[in-house]
Amino acid sequence: MKAAVLGATGLVGRTFVKLLSGHPWFKVSKLVASEKSAGKEYGEIVEDSPKEFRKNVIISLEEFLKDPDVDIVFNALPASISREVEEKLAQEIPVFTNARAHRYDEDVPILVPEVNMNHLGIIEVQKKNRGWDGFIVTNPNCSTAILTVSLAPLVEFGIKKVRVATMQAISGAGFSGLSAYAIHDNVIPFINGEEWKIENESKKILGKFNGERIENADFDISAIATRVPVIHGHTEAVFVELEKVNIEEIREAFDSFDPLRDYKLPSYEKPIVYSEVPQPRLHRDRGKGLTGTVGRLEKINGGVKYVTLGHNLVRGAAGGSVLNAELAYRLGYL
Amino acid sequence: MKAAVLGATGLVGRTFVKLLSGHPWFKVSKLVASEKSAGKEYGEIVEDSPKEFRKNVIISLEEFLKDPDVDIVFNALPASISREVEEKLAQEIPVFTNARAHRYDEDVPILVPEVNMNHLGIIEVQKKNRGWDGFIVTNPNCSTAILTVSLAPLVEFGIKKVRVATMQAISGAGFSGLSAYAIHDNVIPFINGEEWKIENESKKILGKFNGERIENADFDISAIATRVPVIHGHTEAVFVELEKVNIEEIREAFDSFDPLRDYKLPSYEKPIVYSEVPQPRLHRDRGKGLTGTVGRLEKINGGVKYVTLGHNLVRGAAGGSVLNAELAYRLGYL
Amino acid sequence: MKAAVLGATGLVGRTFVKLLSGHPWFKVSKLVASEKSAGKEYGEIVEDSPKEFRKNVIISLEEFLKDPDVDIVFNALPASISREVEEKLAQEIPVFTNARAHRYDEDVPILVPEVNMNHLGIIEVQKKNRGWDGFIVTNPNCSTAILTVSLAPLVEFGIKKVRVATMQAISGAGFSGLSAYAIHDNVIPFINGEEWKIENESKKILGKFNGERIENADFDISAIATRVPVIHGHTEAVFVELEKVNIEEIREAFDSFDPLRDYKLPSYEKPIVYSEVPQPRLHRDRGKGLTGTVGRLEKINGGVKYVTLGHNLVRGAAGGSVLNAELAYRLGYL
Amino acid sequence: MKAAVLGATGLVGRTFVKLLSGHPWFKVSKLVASEKSAGKEYGEIVEDSPKEFRKNVIISLEEFLKDPDVDIVFNALPASISREVEEKLAQEIPVFTNARAHRYDEDVPILVPEVNMNHLGIIEVQKKNRGWDGFIVTNPNCSTAILTVSLAPLVEFGIKKVRVATMQAISGAGFSGLSAYAIHDNVIPFINGEEWKIENESKKILGKFNGERIENADFDISAIATRVPVIHGHTEAVFVELEKVNIEEIREAFDSFDPLRDYKLPSYEKPIVYSEVPQPRLHRDRGKGLTGTVGRLEKINGGVKYVTLGHNLVRGAAGGSVLNAELAYRLGYL
Repeated sequence: MKAAVLGATGLVGRTFVKLLSGHPWFKVSKLVASEKSAGKEYGEIVEDSPKEFRKNVIISLEEFLKDPDVDIVFNALPASISREVEEKLAQEIPVFTNARAHRYDEDVPILVPEVNMNHLGIIEVQKKNRGWDGFIVTNPNCSTAILTVSLAPLVEFGIKKVRVATMQAISGAGFSGLSAYAIHDNVIPFINGEEWKIENESKKILGKFNGERIENADFDISAIATRVPVIHGHTEAVFVELEKVNIEEIREAFDSFDPLRDYKLPSYEKPIVYSEVPQPRLHRDRGKGLTGTVGRLEKINGGVKYVTLGHNLVRGAAGGSVLNAELAYRLGYL
Repeated sequence: MKAAVLGATGLVGRTFVKLLSGHPWFKVSKLVASEKSAGKEYGEIVEDSPKEFRKNVIISLEEFLKDPDVDIVFNALPASISREVEEKLAQEIPVFTNARAHRYDEDVPILVPEVNMNHLGIIEVQKKNRGWDGFIVTNPNCSTAILTVSLAPLVEFGIKKVRVATMQAISGAGFSGLSAYAIHDNVIPFINGEEWKIENESKKILGKFNGERIENADFDISAIATRVPVIHGHTEAVFVELEKVNIEEIREAFDSFDPLRDYKLPSYEKPIVYSEVPQPRLHRDRGKGLTGTVGRLEKINGGVKYVTLGHNLVRGAAGGSVLNAELAYRLGYL
Repeated sequence: MKAAVLGATGLVGRTFVKLLSGHPWFKVSKLVASEKSAGKEYGEIVEDSPKEFRKNVIISLEEFLKDPDVDIVFNALPASISREVEEKLAQEIPVFTNARAHRYDEDVPILVPEVNMNHLGIIEVQKKNRGWDGFIVTNPNCSTAILTVSLAPLVEFGIKKVRVATMQAISGAGFSGLSAYAIHDNVIPFINGEEWKIENESKKILGKFNGERIENADFDISAIATRVPVIHGHTEAVFVELEKVNIEEIREAFDSFDPLRDYKLPSYEKPIVYSEVPQPRLHRDRGKGLTGTVGRLEKINGGVKYVTLGHNLVRGAAGGSVLNAELAYRLGYL
Repeated sequence: MKAAVLGATGLVGRTFVKLLSGHPWFKVSKLVASEKSAGKEYGEIVEDSPKEFRKNVIISLEEFLKDPDVDIVFNALPASISREVEEKLAQEIPVFTNARAHRYDEDVPILVPEVNMNHLGIIEVQKKNRGWDGFIVTNPNCSTAILTVSLAPLVEFGIKKVRVATMQAISGAGFSGLSAYAIHDNVIPFINGEEWKIENESKKILGKFNGERIENADFDISAIATRVPVIHGHTEAVFVELEKVNIEEIREAFDSFDPLRDYKLPSYEKPIVYSEVPQPRLHRDRGKGLTGTVGRLEKINGGVKYVTLGHNLVRGAAGGSVLNAELAYRLGYL
């Protein structure tokens, strides 16, 4: 399938391009970026571009929209322009997007394959609702993706309440979204909109799709999001109250969590590995960035506490989106 | 009063010396450290020593113990040797200590003046129990000190449950307690014994002293402690469930919290200032390190969430201990 | 004297305001910034504003220029708009500026009081040339200021050649001039225009003023400028070839360097202190940021090598400029 | 050939093990470390051990020395114990060592294959002198390795004088050789012995082997070594005076420098790639850490200035040593 990457020069876009390099199912034929990059070779802008794309000439979004001519779109554009662009494209083409523009639409899934693969079914509703031949599948906000993968094995224990404090990496803010003067030797406990996203996206992702709509999960969740001086890898300190607490079974649930093992998705990696002390510099690249790390699991009153982390650009953005597309392909939606 | 600082060359000891420089009540006459520093001038070891101590000759602990000849002792020695040293000294001399050795003894207070000043009364019990003329007053673990100052204004709202994730600074590990290779570009969610201390010390500090013993507070508390690449200042993300939640009143309680205003303690500073986004590099030095910062206060289901931070070496160690001594002096225990 | 600070909300402007707080000679009466800050109280924008300025209402540059009504101007505006603004103001008012706009004009001094105080005399030439009642005095680029203070004691040994590699701090790029993603865990050996400034400004500063014009010094100088992950304090590794090399005398020259001791300038601090291993986190605040640190002095073939550092916002910017004004005041130019 | 890695659990030792994993010529059969690791599986100590070594049981140095039974030894032990160990082993076995113990012996080469491959010939002299069947080949100090690779293409232009300031990474000090409190938000311009090593090793490496002994190169070199907060990758600012300065030819010399292209060494990578702004976080892993980066090349008076960087653990330590062994193998010395 011919693929386009929109926003190909940003941090998430570059990660898309890297992950799709040599992909057996999706062949990137169009690299789309802003006017100021258009016309240049990708390797001029992106020093460490994969060899196969170095000579590709970047096209502008405007030009791309005139004649997309691809079979699948991966979107790493900013949220502000994504709503319009995605709706235009989805009339004909499946769009897998990291932008938040459509995440909260009732008929659009926020997909994390290992967590809620059956939510993908809602795209039939979406296509019917909107009269589209294509569709839109979103992946969650980066810290939500990492959190929900760690919550999925706990669902069987009855999640009642979640309290999570995140320690998020610099690359989550993009190339120039965070000034060095602000974060150096500092913790900044404010990321605009992040806590709302974590709380609301988690409940949708862990909700149930009944064939027509997604019923949000009804646990109580509250988040405090902070930025820390780490380049990649969001770390999260999680307190969960559960209906049933059996620490050995929970540990086993983390260890054995591997729901898509048999789907043979090209990018698939075991979604969780347990390490005693998870640390972003040591563990963010596990499973090429798709494997989250869980550790420090201990019983607390009425539940457990643990620490999880994952690569924000891969599991939390481009990698999750590519996995979404692979699942859709495998399940015949593409 | 003539004072000794034990462990005067370590990070906490240096902070003691700095804070006691020019103190109106306590005059440091002995700087005590290990054998390898003994005999040297303080300014040789401590480049930024206050001028008045630069020429003071350091004495060894052994030598000091032979003939203390001071009226008050501030202890910054490691826990491992503190139990014995403190018990020996307290037979005659009041000891204010940052070491954890005696914190969990039933007749020893963990004192944070703004939070539990009346716990100081237990030293009468302690002296009687042990037949001492002196006594031991401990200050809490650094992250506990910062946490409990922020919890004190919430007591009137009925604290039921606390979930706290800490992001602790490098200086909390001492000069060489943490390798650069370990923490650079990283978060380390493990600090040995820290979570236990936060959970248990908080309940003792916020407990009630009934004239004979301290009844621990009975809220449910759980902590996850992490180390982050920040030089000074522990930041804490706190979720609290309360009997009564009125966000305006809680905000007002933080703003007006100033219980020792009228005691005229020389080092006293307002214990809490509210800032929208508390940040260690910007706020750790508030009130010479004794003022904590609270911010990001928001209502959650059944309670509130907020972020607090304070200077781990001052509020969380030497500064708290000096304040303890000042309170004891003011109340006539010295 | 009534003073205005232009660009009062930027990093250098804030430093001006802090240094001028309570100044015995210059009283800041106008805080000037961009349109978007105008009308707000200074304390709203600058959280840690000195108390005396917290309620001052910021005025826009446009409004200020209509009726300056001050006796002296300190300029922290960007270079791009400074040329025009300074020339307009200097018709009537003395301007002390951190901007580079006029540094390379033949009749404008780049002043570092401890190094080339007699260059101040050129303002008579300047006033005559330009028919102004006021004048313009610039201070050098931050890394040049720090370097030239360390070179001044070496002049008597005959400076022939300088090779300098700088390791410059984040705050030198302003609040948002450097992205965290760029500098985290990195060294960036490129700062636009910096090497040229170091090389050219140094030769002018160490040049001779003959009553009519400044003859550049004729040593051979080459610089490599890098940015490192340090918040404040530029460190410089310096190799100097000299006519005469006597390491004891050179060490003594550094130690005794104190040319303005007797001028009683309010902000004056000893310009150099020798420390065996100069380090920005430990030494940048020496002498309130005006004292540079020199260390690691060793003989090399035909000269010496050493390391120097200083606070880029104080010695390297606002503090140097305030010292320039104090010298001008003392010498009767104001 | 059966290989042993001595000091296999340290940072350099782990790098040896990683680089030798799957090596076509050298098969690691013994992992040697201190008593406290002996008896444990390598994967227990080294979380990210290559799979093939995870189950290998570590043996103690003492045990190893009793019966080495390998064909080649790679040594990452500390210098303090290396002299004796290496001399004992070299009686029978070729030793390639990162330790400095023998670097300054007259009959021992400090080898950088791309720079001075013919120095390998001195091992014949060494064997004869010492009556050994084995021999010792050292690689230089990390910052020297990186520097000399960048100087090699300049030899034809006549190197007269070198002034170099290094900005060295944290990992150069080993796991726990540098405290976080020391280096955080700091530059430390002192690394014990480093400047001497750079100056003296460079002259030996760039010297001439005349069949009997190595004549040091006679250029004038001076170094200032600093530590910066970067995890891996030493950056060096270099000023070189040359007999002949042609900037285009020098640029071309860097670009085309590839002296061992035709030797088909398994680990070989192009030793230098030119990038406009070399940066450790972006470029340290080039060519699996064996490719250095050169950039910022500019003409200065009588020479050039440039910046170079390389991976201190690979090019600067284990990788260089493996390359040395590969060269020795290819040239028939093994």
